Amino acid sequence: VNELELISLLTRSLPGNASVIVGAGDDCAVLDLGLAGEFVLFKTDAVVEGVHFESGAAPEQVGHKALARCLSDVAAMAGRPTHALVTLGLPPAFDPVRIEAVYRGLNQLAVRHDVAVVGGETTANPGGMLISISLLGRVARERCLLRSGSQPGDALFVTGDLGGALERKHLTFEPRLSEAAWLADHVSVHAMIDLSDGLAGDLRHLLKPSALGALLQAESIPVSRAARQRSRTGLSSKSPLLAALTDGEDFELLFTVAAGDAVALLDAWKDSFPKLKLTCIGKITGQPGIALRDKEGLKPFPHHAYLHFA
Amino acid sequence: VNELELISLLTRSLPGNASVIVGAGDDCAVLDLGLAGEFVLFKTDAVVEGVHFESGAAPEQVGHKALARCLSDVAAMAGRPTHALVTLGLPPAFDPVRIEAVYRGLNQLAVRHDVAVVGGETTANPGGMLISISLLGRVARERCLLRSGSQPGDALFVTGDLGGALERKHLTFEPRLSEAAWLADHVSVHAMIDLSDGLAGDLRHLLKPSALGALLQAESIPVSRAARQRSRTGLSSKSPLLAALTDGEDFELLFTVAAGDAVALLDAWKDSFPKLKLTCIGKITGQPGIALRDKEGLKPFPHHAYLHFA
Repeated sequence: VNELELISLLTRSLPGNASVIVGAGDDCAVLDLGLAGEFVLFKTDAVVEGVHFESGAAPEQVGHKALARCLSDVAAMAGRPTHALVTLGLPPAFDPVRIEAVYRGLNQLAVRHDVAVVGGETTANPGGMLISISLLGRVARERCLLRSGSQPGDALFVTGDLGGALERKHLTFEPRLSEAAWLADHVSVHAMIDLSDGLAGDLRHLLKPSALGALLQAESIPVSRAARQRSRTGLSSKSPLLAALTDGEDFELLFTVAAGDAVALLDAWKDSFPKLKLTCIGKITGQPGIALRDKEGLKPFPHHAYLHFA
Repeated sequence: VNELELISLLTRSLPGNASVIVGAGDDCAVLDLGLAGEFVLFKTDAVVEGVHFESGAAPEQVGHKALARCLSDVAAMAGRPTHALVTLGLPPAFDPVRIEAVYRGLNQLAVRHDVAVVGGETTANPGGMLISISLLGRVARERCLLRSGSQPGDALFVTGDLGGALERKHLTFEPRLSEAAWLADHVSVHAMIDLSDGLAGDLRHLLKPSALGALLQAESIPVSRAARQRSRTGLSSKSPLLAALTDGEDFELLFTVAAGDAVALLDAWKDSFPKLKLTCIGKITGQPGIALRDKEGLKPFPHHAYLHFA
């Protein structure tokens, strides 16, 4: 049983109630609490020592990453984060100075996005440090972007560069909150997700609700310099393209718009975010599965190229 | 550095914002999201294998306990729980059948209280299973009960029996949601907390915001039969009274009312909850610290009788 199969098993019959707009299966839960014009977003995400960060990682960066991952999920719905709770699992021997530094990194990011940290708890966790963040956010009802909503023929876009994130930015990335808000304001985005599992894995999450497929143009995929270097120096056995498709931890935005909106989007984006790449990497198709077109032709991208449990 | 000192260190300077009514330091965070007449309650709580439950515990009961602890915190504010997220930390070898059973226990309790389970996540956790629950709730603004608000002279009440909970009910207890709602409707409660750390420890949490003290009548404290038996048979080295004061995991309600309301409260309670004991165990005083009166006279209850890290 891998992670996705287990989640699918557990989420088959979860209790609901009338206020649930979107439950399990999107970047955040979407709740109608009765606020005029707005939904509430609700999300939880954990980082674990030895899984999501090494024991020697800078504690400020660990705290930053723990919160940034949740903020990235709120960004994927074009939402605005508002309140966080912090659950800290601590091994028997822990250094309070290190824990304070974790909080410092987390609090600095919270302040930048006007997120109130309203409590949480500490608990013993024999295997190592664990930081779980619970996050609340808000989004205007008509702006809330889901994973579902893509149409065959849509253009598929991704921000930034992909691959090699563990070497370059997984502890320091900035969640794409302002970019997502801009997209919701300026473009008719059909569906959006943030990239945590890798382009191929998260693209599947985007396609699944609509039972659609995607055709990726291999030459268009924005491979990071780190992914190229790791491949060239033998640090990674993956080709640069495979790294971009499967490394994970990119925390960029992946989204679809009608093909007719693609050119205007690219122009407007360049004006607003001159320093951040936006790339059309392919299109949505009616044929389930991911296909990759390169110089040698069209081939399916295998489903099991990347399944993680983390 | 013990747990309370660490928490005090970490919560000294948390980022806030204008919507925070109560941040860290009460049973739940209290948020003003702009709902007419209501506050939103926000809480997180985790149970860890080997700390809060043994590896051999029935998985349905583990799931029940994980959610019930959070519901108990919402009860302590006289609130109504509405939505939960479940974070599941799993050791390398786990049994999916066991995980399904954890969810079954959790879901059954959620359904009974109309709580929607709207997602969560699974993550690797090398040291053992961890279940962290994030909970949202609501409460009418004028009904929300805090830990602060006690006055010198107030009568101090506790529901149920105390001590020995690890032997009898820590995996199966029912959170006191209906009792707390009744209290908010029928009595002018000054302050309330749920008992997780033990009467002495949680009473200190209740006294701390107002810098008050308490005088407990030793003979009035409702010691459970399990606490008496464990002491008699040598299973516990604590006296039954010390067990009731410090064992923890009781998940009963501890609250204060004006002394003049005490008799009417006891009468009305008996009519509404004939099967659940309600006991006046002492009073609030202006002198910080906890004093205990028994046959031999009055003595202070030492601060370090119970400090845990769990």
